[in-house]
Amino acid sequence: MSQPAALSTDSRLLEQGDPLSDGRAFRRCLGQYPTGVSVITAQHGDKRVGMAANSFAAVSLDPALVLWSVRCESSSAATFMAASHFAISVLAADQVEVSQLFGSGHEERFNRVPWTAGAGNAPLIDGAIAHLQCRLVKVYEGGDHWILLGQVEHYARFAGEPLVFAQGQYAVTQNHPQLADNQASQNSPAGDGDGLFTSLLNSATQHMSRLFHAHRQELGVTAASARLVNILALGAASLDAIEHESLLGRGAIEDALNELSKQGLVQSNAGEYALTEAGLLLRQALIARATEFTAQQLAGIPEADLAAAKRVLRKLLSN
Amino acid sequence: MSQPAALSTDSRLLEQGDPLSDGRAFRRCLGQYPTGVSVITAQHGDKRVGMAANSFAAVSLDPALVLWSVRCESSSAATFMAASHFAISVLAADQVEVSQLFGSGHEERFNRVPWTAGAGNAPLIDGAIAHLQCRLVKVYEGGDHWILLGQVEHYARFAGEPLVFAQGQYAVTQNHPQLADNQASQNSPAGDGDGLFTSLLNSATQHMSRLFHAHRQELGVTAASARLVNILALGAASLDAIEHESLLGRGAIEDALNELSKQGLVQSNAGEYALTEAGLLLRQALIARATEFTAQQLAGIPEADLAAAKRVLRKLLSN
Repeated sequence: MSQPAALSTDSRLLEQGDPLSDGRAFRRCLGQYPTGVSVITAQHGDKRVGMAANSFAAVSLDPALVLWSVRCESSSAATFMAASHFAISVLAADQVEVSQLFGSGHEERFNRVPWTAGAGNAPLIDGAIAHLQCRLVKVYEGGDHWILLGQVEHYARFAGEPLVFAQGQYAVTQNHPQLADNQASQNSPAGDGDGLFTSLLNSATQHMSRLFHAHRQELGVTAASARLVNILALGAASLDAIEHESLLGRGAIEDALNELSKQGLVQSNAGEYALTEAGLLLRQALIARATEFTAQQLAGIPEADLAAAKRVLRKLLSN
Repeated sequence: MSQPAALSTDSRLLEQGDPLSDGRAFRRCLGQYPTGVSVITAQHGDKRVGMAANSFAAVSLDPALVLWSVRCESSSAATFMAASHFAISVLAADQVEVSQLFGSGHEERFNRVPWTAGAGNAPLIDGAIAHLQCRLVKVYEGGDHWILLGQVEHYARFAGEPLVFAQGQYAVTQNHPQLADNQASQNSPAGDGDGLFTSLLNSATQHMSRLFHAHRQELGVTAASARLVNILALGAASLDAIEHESLLGRGAIEDALNELSKQGLVQSNAGEYALTEAGLLLRQALIARATEFTAQQLAGIPEADLAAAKRVLRKLLSN
């Protein structure tokens, strides 16, 4: 007896359904799975192609195989399939601009970013934290995408932190909070008073950030929408400018703009987006909410202590 | 003219080579690409299988396709290929234990974690941030793995933060530091003094963590090794216990234990690992290093300010 699809009744449910009935919602669901950002490149004849992709996956150790997917309709697909090799550069945390440049298919992308030619002349992006030079060994059908399987001929690993893309936004990693708990219980007996200051700082920051997140959600505003409202409060902006400032992916920006437009908070004019009167009021409410939150958190702390804490934090930042 | 594989001369280079000549090094390189953690399950007849995997990738929107890979030699592979469906649960940040349980193939895993039967009776793990109920539509060859392509029949998205696996360790995401920069320059004109405290706290914490990371690396100790030394300082431990405490993946733990054993810092005895005399000395050096780092950072800050800052942080943590 095979069971049909189960409907969720979990109170944390945000949305569910048939992927084909709402492609954007399905994409948001896929976006729950965090990934790195890779730039994948190839050269065939004098045609050089490159795009940002988060469909990369490791497949096999022996033989050494990896895969990624390219949209069948992509103008680069034919070159990727004709080239003998492709190169994968795993982007570092400080390469958001590189991701945006290769995400946009900008014509000048290979002139704006330093790179080195690898196997089959496929460009390896400088500053990445990993390079994989791959021979294309197989192309599989994958619906509206082709799945490209590459045999890794040469790998290189570099020092650096990874860039992460999760829930529609660029992010970086931080130690898992459980580790901080483990370490705190471990460091305490050592009685190392000032060592404690760093872990205290870490714990307090993570704690505040979780509380603030919960607090903002009560206002019924997603993190992405709040971010856009803050950006547009500075003036009307194009999609490109919003992308640059918000560190959100295109999908998340479009979703948030749709939502804000539907609520009459944002209007578009000649390719630029601006807050409406109601949008400006929401921005005030968000500021008030943040101020109220901070006041609640800081309640009962003497002025002098707070001033001293600020001096300490500024000193740390200046090191 | 096709170019052969390029050798890197980047000063940030950690290691490079032919994947087949050093499988562990190649795996470390693949680990530079951050991923989420998914638990993938299926049922066929009365055989129920489930494993933690980070080979998940989205493929196609229409049709809605996703893929993942299973080792050909895995005892679960036959069941996954015989079952009509598989289910993917994208784990939340607080589900490290679930990942470890399904990573270990523990016999009791389906009794220890609450789940709901989905399409084809494939278990959906409670508490996940996404569920994908998939019909198995294709199996492709992928070297020592099979690549399973599934058509998503039902998706569900839940509130929550994702669990991340990157560079051999479990992690969580945090806002990209560039965003903090953007917001700080934005908040300043608002003159919202106490709102500033939270972003000051965030910036100082991220800054300190980057500095500390660089500082520890100068000692020639990887983050993973330092973590193991700290754990083993509390007493001998089994691999399972180390995995639980360290929040590192098996590969990273094995690499670090190999390295530490080779340097005479760790010895194993009857399935347990313990620090040697030299290991205990390294632990002292690490503590001294951390203390020295903190002292450097806090140098010039008056005692009274530091005490006040600690009071503030403790108050924030208690909220």
